[in-house]
Amino acid sequence: MEIPEQDAAHMARAVELAGRGHGSTSPNPVVGCVVLDAAGAVAGEGFHAYAGGPHAEVVALARAGERARGGTAYVTLEPCDHTGRTGPCSVALLDAGVARVVIAVADPNPKAAGGAARLRAHGVAVTSGTLTGAAERVNEEWLTYARLGRSHVTWKFAATLDGRSAAADGTSQWITSPEARADVHRLRAAAGAIVAGVGTVLADDPSLTARPATPAIDPSLTARPTTPAIDPSLAARPAAPAIDPGVPGRTPLRVVIDTEARTPQDARVLDDRAPTLIAVADDAETALKADLLRLPRHANGLDLHALLRELAAREVVSVFVEGGPALAGSFVAQGLVDRVVAYLAPALLGSGRAALGAAGVETIAGIHRLTFDDIAPIGPDLRLIARPTQPGREK
Amino acid sequence: MEIPEQDAAHMARAVELAGRGHGSTSPNPVVGCVVLDAAGAVAGEGFHAYAGGPHAEVVALARAGERARGGTAYVTLEPCDHTGRTGPCSVALLDAGVARVVIAVADPNPKAAGGAARLRAHGVAVTSGTLTGAAERVNEEWLTYARLGRSHVTWKFAATLDGRSAAADGTSQWITSPEARADVHRLRAAAGAIVAGVGTVLADDPSLTARPATPAIDPSLTARPTTPAIDPSLAARPAAPAIDPGVPGRTPLRVVIDTEARTPQDARVLDDRAPTLIAVADDAETALKADLLRLPRHANGLDLHALLRELAAREVVSVFVEGGPALAGSFVAQGLVDRVVAYLAPALLGSGRAALGAAGVETIAGIHRLTFDDIAPIGPDLRLIARPTQPGREK
Ligand SMILES: NC(=O)c1ccc[n+]([C@@H]2O[C@H](COP(=O)([O-])OP(=O)(O)OC[C@H]3O[C@@H](n4cnc5c(N)ncnc54)[C@H](OP(=O)(O)O)[C@@H]3O)[C@@H](O)[C@H]2O)c1
Ligand SMILES: NC(=O)c1ccc[n+]([C@@H]2O[C@H](COP(=O)([O-])OP(=O)(O)OC[C@H]3O[C@@H](n4cnc5c(N)ncnc54)[C@H](OP(=O)(O)O)[C@@H]3O)[C@@H](O)[C@H]2O)c1
Repeated sequence: MEIPEQDAAHMARAVELAGRGHGSTSPNPVVGCVVLDAAGAVAGEGFHAYAGGPHAEVVALARAGERARGGTAYVTLEPCDHTGRTGPCSVALLDAGVARVVIAVADPNPKAAGGAARLRAHGVAVTSGTLTGAAERVNEEWLTYARLGRSHVTWKFAATLDGRSAAADGTSQWITSPEARADVHRLRAAAGAIVAGVGTVLADDPSLTARPATPAIDPSLTARPTTPAIDPSLAARPAAPAIDPGVPGRTPLRVVIDTEARTPQDARVLDDRAPTLIAVADDAETALKADLLRLPRHANGLDLHALLRELAAREVVSVFVEGGPALAGSFVAQGLVDRVVAYLAPALLGSGRAALGAAGVETIAGIHRLTFDDIAPIGPDLRLIARPTQPGREK
Repeated sequence: MEIPEQDAAHMARAVELAGRGHGSTSPNPVVGCVVLDAAGAVAGEGFHAYAGGPHAEVVALARAGERARGGTAYVTLEPCDHTGRTGPCSVALLDAGVARVVIAVADPNPKAAGGAARLRAHGVAVTSGTLTGAAERVNEEWLTYARLGRSHVTWKFAATLDGRSAAADGTSQWITSPEARADVHRLRAAAGAIVAGVGTVLADDPSLTARPATPAIDPSLTARPTTPAIDPSLAARPAAPAIDPGVPGRTPLRVVIDTEARTPQDARVLDDRAPTLIAVADDAETALKADLLRLPRHANGLDLHALLRELAAREVVSVFVEGGPALAGSFVAQGLVDRVVAYLAPALLGSGRAALGAAGVETIAGIHRLTFDDIAPIGPDLRLIARPTQPGREK
């Protein structure tokens, strides 16, 4: 039997492994697994790398081979108990003869849950709740999606230190650096969908793709590699994964929030570089040739709760809201922002468009409180990541 | 003869020592000194701790004693050559028999310059320009004052992540944390003057003192000690320096920028907790009982260049501009902000008063570019320090 400190250390490693699947497992969770032999030595490690690929437990057990017998498996998420694209991991762990399983987070998905119970029923010692916080964090997007039945929302903005996204005359190119813009593209690529308001589409005609808008960025300038270094031996993942439209989540869906279907037929978001949904009111009259998502109307346009539920139904685990200020204000007002990513340029404007529009706050008591999670210099700019102090308080 | 790497290391130590004088040497510079013996071992260290106190060289030489003979002195600022409250340091170095003097920054003050020339004339080897950048930085406020003949300006603001300083109804208590507010008081105390616009005085009736407005802040909560730990043996400074109104710069002057003398006679800034200047237009008619500073009019009120020159003439080395947004906008527009200190709370408002008012920018090409200098968590908030990319470009 392991002592708790060792449990935490092995689970921390499993969490680290899980994180390597970020951006490519959708609509599946990210999961990491460490298998020890009976003597307590690490025998195998694995993570879930892409939807349809082997689960973390299967990868780790394959590497451990016979050494798994009588050993311990650390899994960041309760092993699945259903036969989907792969067989149940609970059965794989039983077949491998693992004596103990340590689980960080219980599976909230009714289809997949039951793994822990099956293991226990077959005499495996099961420990739950080890390093739950870190394992929840690494799997934040999928857990929001699985628990709340809606897509997880990241709102990104770029602004000056005084919170302006454009000068008084509307000009805004470029407030943040090429490095910051490259970082945005990296985050976009990891999202299931990129969401913008029709105001932004009409003003800027953005393409909303994950490919860099500025060519020829010197990779040595970016704060971190665009594709994280992955030890290919840890996952049965293709060495150089191509953008495969057959794997959901690899080419983010583009979504325009457009009550009255004002998106022009020749807008860049309607080109063939990525699939696009135009979300319109259920009673909107339009001749637009596009995939339409019909939604109920709400306060300032469309019902954003309904939007996120509809996207979740289409297996969009996470969305990246890029603005503009009006749409972002509605997301914030309704408690639907799970993560804020702010790129702050070391610059001052003093006037011009604010990064965030009306967010339903009249007086200071209604302020939307966040907690800073991560602060990183990106080129000359700063990237701040924050999350609501009371997450899931939807309004 | 020292090799350059050793020169840099000793000068870095002298810069560190100089920094210990921050906030208490006004109207003098901060200066640090390291004295080596003839064999290259450290024989004495010192810094200038308060105006009227011994200079850094004198402190370090006193500690080195006879060991200074034939040795090397590292000084962050060219040794003075004039007899002020103390004798010339150039003479003290000659008397001690120092063989070599390494200087980081030449003295811009015509009254004090000439120290290097006198040393050379007496056969001392003088090296200049070692670690100039760091030595300029540590002495930034005084060098701005000495070179430009105006007070150095720090603009401080506190805002949400989206740049708001108050909610839509004007309420603003408290956007930032007690820890951030305590940090502000620490910075205020180091300034020669605290400057606010009459708009702020009329709206908030602030006392503009350096004493904490909120009592009973648990010192263990503050990110750094309110008074930095000083090794008393390094400077002939009183062990527990009291706030001594006789030492300029210890009780910051309060300055209200008030074109038409609208400050009420019973405003807190006119109480007896600190001296106060009310800056008014040279043609303003007023019966206000207060020390008035008469200034020419300019674009949005008073001429801020004239203000800073007048304050410099009164030996105010540095000012701390606390707002409001209108006054800060004028300082920024005129290129008169030397340092920005931003306290950002992890919170969103979406509407309400912006931290910075109109700053003379119409289009993105006119943006005021800065460079981030320092990023520190202060309680739950972030403190960002930035400076103009092209300092001294006054407009
Ligand atoms: N610097 C940046 O990071 C950044 C990023 C993106 C955009 N922008 C700028 O933002 C500007 C456009 O922003 P914007 O605020 O005018 O427009 P927006 O936020 O892009 O779009 C707002 C529009 O979305 C529709 N909408 C539907 N449901 C909504 C809801 N629940 N809440 C809010 N809006 C809803 C409404 O259209 P209907 O009126 O038809 O109902 C509304 O007018 C552009 O100038 C663009 O350059 C800046
Ligand atoms: N959160 C924070 O960090 C913070 C800090 C301070 C203040 N505040 C808030 O700011 C608000 C007041 O700000 P405000 O912008 O209205 O007023 P302000 O900046 O405090 O003062 C502006 C006034 O200063 C005078 N002035 C003289 N010369 C000037 C010049 N060259 N440029 C600009 N102004 C000059 C003008 O008075 P005349 O019109 O008489 O010429 C002008 O109306 C208050 O509500 C206060 O609560 C917030």
